[in-house]
Amino acid sequence: MVKVDMLVEGTDVPQGMSYRQAARKAVAACVSDFASKGVRPDSFLVSLGLRSGTTERQVGQLAQGFKDAAKQWNLKLVGGDTNEAKELVIDCTMVGYANRIVERRGAKPGDLLVVTGRFGLQPAGLAILMRKAKADPSFRARATDSVLNPEPKLNVGIALAKYLTSAMDSSDGLARSLHTLARASSVGFEVSTVPLAGGVRKFAKANGLSAEELGLDGGEEYVIVGTVGARNLSAASRAARKARGGLLVIGRATEQEDRVILGSGDSAVPIADEGWTHLS
Amino acid sequence: MVKVDMLVEGTDVPQGMSYRQAARKAVAACVSDFASKGVRPDSFLVSLGLRSGTTERQVGQLAQGFKDAAKQWNLKLVGGDTNEAKELVIDCTMVGYANRIVERRGAKPGDLLVVTGRFGLQPAGLAILMRKAKADPSFRARATDSVLNPEPKLNVGIALAKYLTSAMDSSDGLARSLHTLARASSVGFEVSTVPLAGGVRKFAKANGLSAEELGLDGGEEYVIVGTVGARNLSAASRAARKARGGLLVIGRATEQEDRVILGSGDSAVPIADEGWTHLS
Repeated sequence: MVKVDMLVEGTDVPQGMSYRQAARKAVAACVSDFASKGVRPDSFLVSLGLRSGTTERQVGQLAQGFKDAAKQWNLKLVGGDTNEAKELVIDCTMVGYANRIVERRGAKPGDLLVVTGRFGLQPAGLAILMRKAKADPSFRARATDSVLNPEPKLNVGIALAKYLTSAMDSSDGLARSLHTLARASSVGFEVSTVPLAGGVRKFAKANGLSAEELGLDGGEEYVIVGTVGARNLSAASRAARKARGGLLVIGRATEQEDRVILGSGDSAVPIADEGWTHLS
Repeated sequence: MVKVDMLVEGTDVPQGMSYRQAARKAVAACVSDFASKGVRPDSFLVSLGLRSGTTERQVGQLAQGFKDAAKQWNLKLVGGDTNEAKELVIDCTMVGYANRIVERRGAKPGDLLVVTGRFGLQPAGLAILMRKAKADPSFRARATDSVLNPEPKLNVGIALAKYLTSAMDSSDGLARSLHTLARASSVGFEVSTVPLAGGVRKFAKANGLSAEELGLDGGEEYVIVGTVGARNLSAASRAARKARGGLLVIGRATEQEDRVILGSGDSAVPIADEGWTHLS
């Protein structure tokens, strides 16, 4: 399996993110994709676009960020290319080997909808970094850290691979992931609850924002969104815990193709296919 | 083998180059690298950075360029990523399989220095496109075409693989390639002649330029520069011809590490490690 993911300064590097963090993030985005497919990555290559005037110190920071990533996920950096560009561009190519890949298609009506983490911290952190929102020091630290030092759950993804019937990572937000999975698998999803990270509701209230929107329309959470057959749920949960992660059931797949709703019966509301996209 | 090559609008897309040509060129640069290593590429991925305001028509042109490349070199486009960026960025990742790869190191003193094409057309074409030089219509067409529609010699490279002791492509110019090969192989090179393309000398004279400099310090010729043991020369030449290419002997490797000279004896002049670099 080979995957590419391009990080572009203007879109993907918020205020407050160092070159070292940006380099690590570019690799993390690829690792997250591998995690959701249950594939252990082996090596990566990086193509760099560097602004003219980039200092040796900055290049050193980028190298350090790639080193951080290589060490954390046990990867070999096997090649690259360097160019001049108008803004920092880091394109990461990642290579890994697998017998089976968890795909976006494969969810069956009746499957349980599961996630490997909670949502809302990343958009909150981004708003804080952009000085568009306020938060107490402890939440601020957690929220901004989730943006600057993303932690894709590689071991959890690999442990879950044999149980998931479909999966993807939530790099464009939970709502968009749900619609993408639904379309790929020709199912609908009935979501019983938006799994919010601790403190998100309080943060939303203090800043006049909707907690549910933060949870649904964020992005770059690097959480795995997937489906699992009901009879495999306890085994999958055990596998996730053993890999130092967790699995939350947040709903179920239905037969109504691409109908993604929050709640059920008369109180159900549609979840729009929104979320954070680069080219809108 | 996996290789990445990033094309950036500001540096790699001259005036007069269409999006379709830019897309094909990004792939051609990778193909050229594979050709010089004697490896047949199998598939490629493209990461795109697109300016905001990029039209559907332009995206269609890019797609057409990738299709052109896939068809010409029998490649599968197996993935990609799209982002917003301040300028067009195309990062091509190419994958291929090989038992043996021709490396930059491996030249031995006494080996013959060979190239698969002639030099000078590309810098001439670039100067014409940038309206910094004039030429008659026929030369103008050949020179600008060499820039807009580069033709790496994939089949020639694969046919030569078993004969070359070292090789690389001349993407940064002949002079720089010679120094890179020399350093990697711990040899020197005595160049007997700069292999100029037809019309380059006349073009240089008419524009007050040095033909030798055009030949040595250009770039993106996508010509293979390599070495071959003397006893394999005729077999290598035959193999190149059979692959509809040619092989020119332009000098020989010496024991004097990283000493690259034009001519021999008292009349020899050093060839500087210059050429076209992205970050200078």
